[in-house]
Amino acid sequence: MPTIRLLIACPDARGIVAGVTGFVAQHNGNLLDSDQHTDLDHREFFMRLAIDTDGFDLTPETFAAAWQPLSDQFNMNWRIHWGSPRKRMVILVSRQTHCLADLLWRWKFGELAVDLPLVVSNHMVGEPLAREAGVPFVHLPVTKDTRPQQEAQILQQLDNARPDFLVLARYMQILSPGFVGRYPDRIINIHHSFLPAFTGGSPYKQAYNRGVKMIGATSHYVTSELDAGPIIAQDTARTSHRDTIADLERKGRDLERIVLARAVRRHVDDKILVSQNKTVVFD
Amino acid sequence: MPTIRLLIACPDARGIVAGVTGFVAQHNGNLLDSDQHTDLDHREFFMRLAIDTDGFDLTPETFAAAWQPLSDQFNMNWRIHWGSPRKRMVILVSRQTHCLADLLWRWKFGELAVDLPLVVSNHMVGEPLAREAGVPFVHLPVTKDTRPQQEAQILQQLDNARPDFLVLARYMQILSPGFVGRYPDRIINIHHSFLPAFTGGSPYKQAYNRGVKMIGATSHYVTSELDAGPIIAQDTARTSHRDTIADLERKGRDLERIVLARAVRRHVDDKILVSQNKTVVFD
Amino acid sequence: MPTIRLLIACPDARGIVAGVTGFVAQHNGNLLDSDQHTDLDHREFFMRLAIDTDGFDLTPETFAAAWQPLSDQFNMNWRIHWGSPRKRMVILVSRQTHCLADLLWRWKFGELAVDLPLVVSNHMVGEPLAREAGVPFVHLPVTKDTRPQQEAQILQQLDNARPDFLVLARYMQILSPGFVGRYPDRIINIHHSFLPAFTGGSPYKQAYNRGVKMIGATSHYVTSELDAGPIIAQDTARTSHRDTIADLERKGRDLERIVLARAVRRHVDDKILVSQNKTVVFD
Amino acid sequence: MPTIRLLIACPDARGIVAGVTGFVAQHNGNLLDSDQHTDLDHREFFMRLAIDTDGFDLTPETFAAAWQPLSDQFNMNWRIHWGSPRKRMVILVSRQTHCLADLLWRWKFGELAVDLPLVVSNHMVGEPLAREAGVPFVHLPVTKDTRPQQEAQILQQLDNARPDFLVLARYMQILSPGFVGRYPDRIINIHHSFLPAFTGGSPYKQAYNRGVKMIGATSHYVTSELDAGPIIAQDTARTSHRDTIADLERKGRDLERIVLARAVRRHVDDKILVSQNKTVVFD
Repeated sequence: MPTIRLLIACPDARGIVAGVTGFVAQHNGNLLDSDQHTDLDHREFFMRLAIDTDGFDLTPETFAAAWQPLSDQFNMNWRIHWGSPRKRMVILVSRQTHCLADLLWRWKFGELAVDLPLVVSNHMVGEPLAREAGVPFVHLPVTKDTRPQQEAQILQQLDNARPDFLVLARYMQILSPGFVGRYPDRIINIHHSFLPAFTGGSPYKQAYNRGVKMIGATSHYVTSELDAGPIIAQDTARTSHRDTIADLERKGRDLERIVLARAVRRHVDDKILVSQNKTVVFD
Repeated sequence: MPTIRLLIACPDARGIVAGVTGFVAQHNGNLLDSDQHTDLDHREFFMRLAIDTDGFDLTPETFAAAWQPLSDQFNMNWRIHWGSPRKRMVILVSRQTHCLADLLWRWKFGELAVDLPLVVSNHMVGEPLAREAGVPFVHLPVTKDTRPQQEAQILQQLDNARPDFLVLARYMQILSPGFVGRYPDRIINIHHSFLPAFTGGSPYKQAYNRGVKMIGATSHYVTSELDAGPIIAQDTARTSHRDTIADLERKGRDLERIVLARAVRRHVDDKILVSQNKTVVFD
Repeated sequence: MPTIRLLIACPDARGIVAGVTGFVAQHNGNLLDSDQHTDLDHREFFMRLAIDTDGFDLTPETFAAAWQPLSDQFNMNWRIHWGSPRKRMVILVSRQTHCLADLLWRWKFGELAVDLPLVVSNHMVGEPLAREAGVPFVHLPVTKDTRPQQEAQILQQLDNARPDFLVLARYMQILSPGFVGRYPDRIINIHHSFLPAFTGGSPYKQAYNRGVKMIGATSHYVTSELDAGPIIAQDTARTSHRDTIADLERKGRDLERIVLARAVRRHVDDKILVSQNKTVVFD
Repeated sequence: MPTIRLLIACPDARGIVAGVTGFVAQHNGNLLDSDQHTDLDHREFFMRLAIDTDGFDLTPETFAAAWQPLSDQFNMNWRIHWGSPRKRMVILVSRQTHCLADLLWRWKFGELAVDLPLVVSNHMVGEPLAREAGVPFVHLPVTKDTRPQQEAQILQQLDNARPDFLVLARYMQILSPGFVGRYPDRIINIHHSFLPAFTGGSPYKQAYNRGVKMIGATSHYVTSELDAGPIIAQDTARTSHRDTIADLERKGRDLERIVLARAVRRHVDDKILVSQNKTVVFD
């Protein structure tokens, strides 16, 4: 059963909630859920509403005009998702396929209500997984010297696939600022450390060398600065002196799969607002 | 800075949120936070609002009359706390004093914004802790044959102390239904297991004998049925075959202290609604 | 690189460790790891040794005779695994396939060093997963009236598959004591609750109705008493009043997959000794 | 009941365990526990043995001479603790007293089997806590310009107190390399972040600004490089966008108390060996 999700960010003021919920009631909307947050540092207000499609007297065609006065009054940034059609997700992956396999499994199992038109990889290793799941797979290899060309190839593929968002499921190439700029707050990455510790390459090796007693995984939106985008989800797991780097990688794979899936789910359900390089997650 | 908390439970219906937030706005209330939940099984609606005292044009004297029409319209159970005066908490404790020590420390440290007029115990071991904290301590010993009399003594003490709620910080006596009935959803207990596993006595011994790989602690409101009241907070910790019962008790003490403190904090901040022997915790 | 694992249980006594490690040294064995535990309640001693195959001058043919005197001296129960050939694992599954999919994925990925000759199910839903992984799948449906016959069919299949151990990856049929007795401490089950809470059917529904704030999963060896066998691994996850039964099931699937995989891994690596219906896990 | 703990580090070689446990058996020692670890990167071997004092025929006076040949054979670094007298612990603290209060409580409760001759602080706020616990408290204030003098005063106090180790229970002054060099691997610090993230000052503010979804605490031995010493224990807790810096501090206090207590306990029980700026924790 699809539900309408309305997300709002605006300067804090009195009467926003009353104004918004009054608007919904006035249009015969059944409010299934509402959540709000005020960032007191920046006097910024955030709100998420879930509205039953049943009975609501506005449509994708008529909503914006009806909403305009309230939006103007409170100087809102807002977006609405009508619950259908489903969001379109494209996955990028390199050699490590555990996150890809996990997302495909959740998708087939019905945990992720998205369309999945494409998997892109600079390696062939994920091809059988995509094929078994019935998802088109495009192999676009890349070398140090062919990055711009390969990115152009990816973008061409995305023109056809028309994704709403991208998931970097252990895609180990750095995307150019130009590429990233096309999908603001819509590229989800999984980094295999508890950020901001161990940015960059080989975080498990870094963790091993530092002798930490826990490892972590972090899912975040990609920005032009490496591993510095807004964090969506994190988790940690215990380690000991007995763990080799291979053990950390193995334990880490379970963390990565679960943290990435949690972040993707939050994005799909329109539960995330981004501000000040941080996320508000209405979970 | 005190804030007003308004808690509502009523049959689910359209327009409740708009009605309530409209009421707040109409009385010039600044909504600091609002959270809601609908129990779809029982078609019951729950809401918690935090309202800035600054500017709100209703008072403890005038609120009820103004609120009455809305309350009638939606058939509400509701309560309001005006942020001051602070709630009055009385602690009951037996021989194990780690939870008492922890609550006293949090209270002195400013983590628990309550008045603490009394500690009651059937043993003397907690007396120095209460004395150092400057809290009156009453020793009311009890035997199998003197339970009714001792309960009567406690109630007499409570008449003077006028608590808003009681905390059983490892108080190992079972309270009579009559006693419990005087403080519905206002007696917070800590049970040293992951309920509903290991109800009753010696849960760590039970856990040891069963060979579990984790232990837990559960804080819940006391009802007339032993260890079966609405659960407020739970947590778990890892154990291994190396742990003796004494080790489980030691690990458990840390769990108990944190879980009980979390539950008390939620209660003090009016974040809990009880329905169907379950809690809605707006955290 | 295969390693030899030697597991010992015997009455506690002085000199066992010196005797055992002296034996290994005398036969030019390189001790890669050793771990021990004494159950003080029952005065029982447990030990696990990992020995490098390289240089050890005993073989599967000559070990028992050389070991006999020491074993007799300390009245040992012992077993040895030479690291190869790999253990043979058979999976039983019903309608819920997330644990099956996870085990197959770990197996293909190289996390589980076992042979996997067979998947048995009373439903067809897992067949595509097994086929894609290249594992034979046998469909043996069952009704209330055909349990003995179906168990006989399973046993016939197992005669051919010759498993070292069985994994019940959400196999929802109760095995007869006769069946269980053939594989003592060699049938690993995953129960979707924090045992001993919520034994039997529909544990997530039970958890929902009780209003717990955490759910759990438990992996244990199967004994003739339902959900009462020695616990190998457990874990928990937070829930809230917002979680429906479907949400608990979704969160639970992640728990179940990880807890079962952890238990299977421990079993495959010969890290578990069973005594007094409890496990010693040398992890 | 005191037990003897013997800790060994040496280059990896065949026969160490047999040699060591044979030595213990030869001297009629009852081995209560033994644990070992080999660092394959550096070919270094680590071992911890717990030996019953009852029956062991060596004494603090005779052990070294008897042990010498084995120590020479394997080129060992080793130390032995005879279980008594108890270790002497001195606590340093600044304005934040939650870790001090927690350690004092555990000490009084019997969880920490140490002597506690002194608390040193550059502030007076912890004085009542020490006084109530019956522990001498020395106030040694410090300014930017008086650091060397204040360190000299501390060292003078320590000359009298003769501590085996120091605990920095939120002591917010940086100790000079000279000071640190006097207590190698014997100064335990608690840092209020998940190291190596957020080193230096105000880690909760750093965490808040970065928008992490979990916070952490790290206990480590102090070395001359700030927040870079060998890690003994770590733990994490969930946070959300709703948490202010004050909330992170509150949640962090619980983490800090538990992580520091865990580290101190491991040190007191001689469960830690340090090598390559990492710890081997035989837990």
